[in-house]
Amino acid sequence: MNTFFFTRILSYCTLLVCLSSATVAAKSGDPLPSWNNGASKTAIMQFVNKVTKKGGADFVPPAERIATFDNDGTLWIEQPMYVQLAFALDRVKAEAPKHPEWKDAEPFKSVLANDMNGVMASGEHGLLELIMATHTGMSVDEFNQIAKYWLTMSKDAKFNRPYTELVYQPMLELLSYLRANGFKTYIVSGGGVEFMRPWTEKVYGIPPEQVIGSSVKTKFELVEGKPTLMRLPEMDFIDDKDGKPVSIQKFIGRRPIAAFGNSDGDLQMLEWATATNRPHFALIVHHTDAEREFAYDRESTVGRLDKALDEAGQKGWTVVDMKKDWKRVFPFQK
Amino acid sequence: MNTFFFTRILSYCTLLVCLSSATVAAKSGDPLPSWNNGASKTAIMQFVNKVTKKGGADFVPPAERIATFDNDGTLWIEQPMYVQLAFALDRVKAEAPKHPEWKDAEPFKSVLANDMNGVMASGEHGLLELIMATHTGMSVDEFNQIAKYWLTMSKDAKFNRPYTELVYQPMLELLSYLRANGFKTYIVSGGGVEFMRPWTEKVYGIPPEQVIGSSVKTKFELVEGKPTLMRLPEMDFIDDKDGKPVSIQKFIGRRPIAAFGNSDGDLQMLEWATATNRPHFALIVHHTDAEREFAYDRESTVGRLDKALDEAGQKGWTVVDMKKDWKRVFPFQK
Repeated sequence: MNTFFFTRILSYCTLLVCLSSATVAAKSGDPLPSWNNGASKTAIMQFVNKVTKKGGADFVPPAERIATFDNDGTLWIEQPMYVQLAFALDRVKAEAPKHPEWKDAEPFKSVLANDMNGVMASGEHGLLELIMATHTGMSVDEFNQIAKYWLTMSKDAKFNRPYTELVYQPMLELLSYLRANGFKTYIVSGGGVEFMRPWTEKVYGIPPEQVIGSSVKTKFELVEGKPTLMRLPEMDFIDDKDGKPVSIQKFIGRRPIAAFGNSDGDLQMLEWATATNRPHFALIVHHTDAEREFAYDRESTVGRLDKALDEAGQKGWTVVDMKKDWKRVFPFQK
Repeated sequence: MNTFFFTRILSYCTLLVCLSSATVAAKSGDPLPSWNNGASKTAIMQFVNKVTKKGGADFVPPAERIATFDNDGTLWIEQPMYVQLAFALDRVKAEAPKHPEWKDAEPFKSVLANDMNGVMASGEHGLLELIMATHTGMSVDEFNQIAKYWLTMSKDAKFNRPYTELVYQPMLELLSYLRANGFKTYIVSGGGVEFMRPWTEKVYGIPPEQVIGSSVKTKFELVEGKPTLMRLPEMDFIDDKDGKPVSIQKFIGRRPIAAFGNSDGDLQMLEWATATNRPHFALIVHHTDAEREFAYDRESTVGRLDKALDEAGQKGWTVVDMKKDWKRVFPFQK
């Protein structure tokens, strides 16, 4: 062995030491820097520490570390209206020239007149009609392109930002922290599954196959000889309230050990995740920050948090006080 | 640095070299030892090589390496009857004392008299009735226990083996080979999803969340105050034929780049996987081995392979001749 080779080995070993020091430093750093120290952050970290401690009484094997997250109001904004509703309204306007009949028919007439009270007055049936008119009648691939394009081009009213920037920085850190600890992170949302899948991997690090949501029926058919999945104007599944535990079992086949939500629509998911003797964790994001985001709970029509807030109190679930617990809300708020 | 440390570094480096040699040796070994050399094995390996070759024209990123497998007749036996039907018949017999009315009502009467012709004469409606009577009315957890217990206790008629031993060794190797090359392996079966999930991880290395199948509706409810998912006597989804591409999109949200089946029930899945400009692979297991397993295709009522065999020929899909291509069929056949 000549000196050159010896020096190379030394350099290589030094590099290894440096690299492993860097890893240790990263590991010993705060994995949740946008969370203020307090009960919420402590509860999260204590839970993760106990289920990942090998040989500990509460150890959970990695394969069973399933964590489910609601999307609207838990990972990104939902006020003043669900992002997907904003999408539907924009799509009605874009498609109106092809549908002259919409000028005189509710709820389309109100949408075209920017009359939100009129839209809301059409009730659940009217909203469903809007969704069907804008979300179906095309192939799955086409719809994904439409959703992706709209999200690139659209901005919200309050922050004038693309919706994909209006995601909660502390929750992004929480997703990464859980994954770094062997958790598999899922979205379980009342929103449309194909509205989320085009962007969740890039924004949340959650791949399409870990996104569960509401869906319309689809049909496999040959379109000009080409196998195609067409979106039909018929609901397949509404992934909200009682539907969340149902879809979790249907898609994952395991009970989550941790569940995260922000509204009464998430209550049953949190009940399902916590109704076991195994270690479990439930967290509710309480929107208390009118200045940096929005403040709403029991009286809100969008993302109402009422029963779940009571039950969280009774059952000792972690309730995040957005104003108090989060150093910043969005990634762009330094 | 003293000599001791230098020696330690040297030993460490030697160890590294040894380890990496071992890895190379393992890698250069045959990943598909139960496959005879021939067109099928070559086609599989050429496909895997090209999609995993970094910088190659056909490289597919790991996240998109989705492979979907039918179960009955593709990964385990399906003759002389689907395993799940054998389960249903056994369950009728086990539950008969609680249902005196079954003695006089078809299809139960024929089941209790071991009259398979009578059972079959009850048609699709009768079979559905059998499935509902034996697969629903209990919680998801209870059903999983029942299915698991039955599989532990039951043996097939021809080989006198537990069904979970009647899985195809070459396909087990193929599953492992694909996973070792970054593929995510899924089951997409006409069989009941909850009948498969209790054992697929142990037998195939496929976790519950990567098992897609037919399903009944479930309902979230409080049973004695405890959140429970009850199985209802109503079909939710039949995951066969046209249903396979539909469920693949619903559950995975990506098109597979490789699909594996054995019957006309898999045809649309294979069409869907291959109707792209991306690299893709389709394989059909043709049951040609009456001695070691069963021989059946165009005329069989179980696992009929007719249209898909024609289309495989036209489209150049890989058709495995079980008798010729497989050195052994089951793990116990050394």
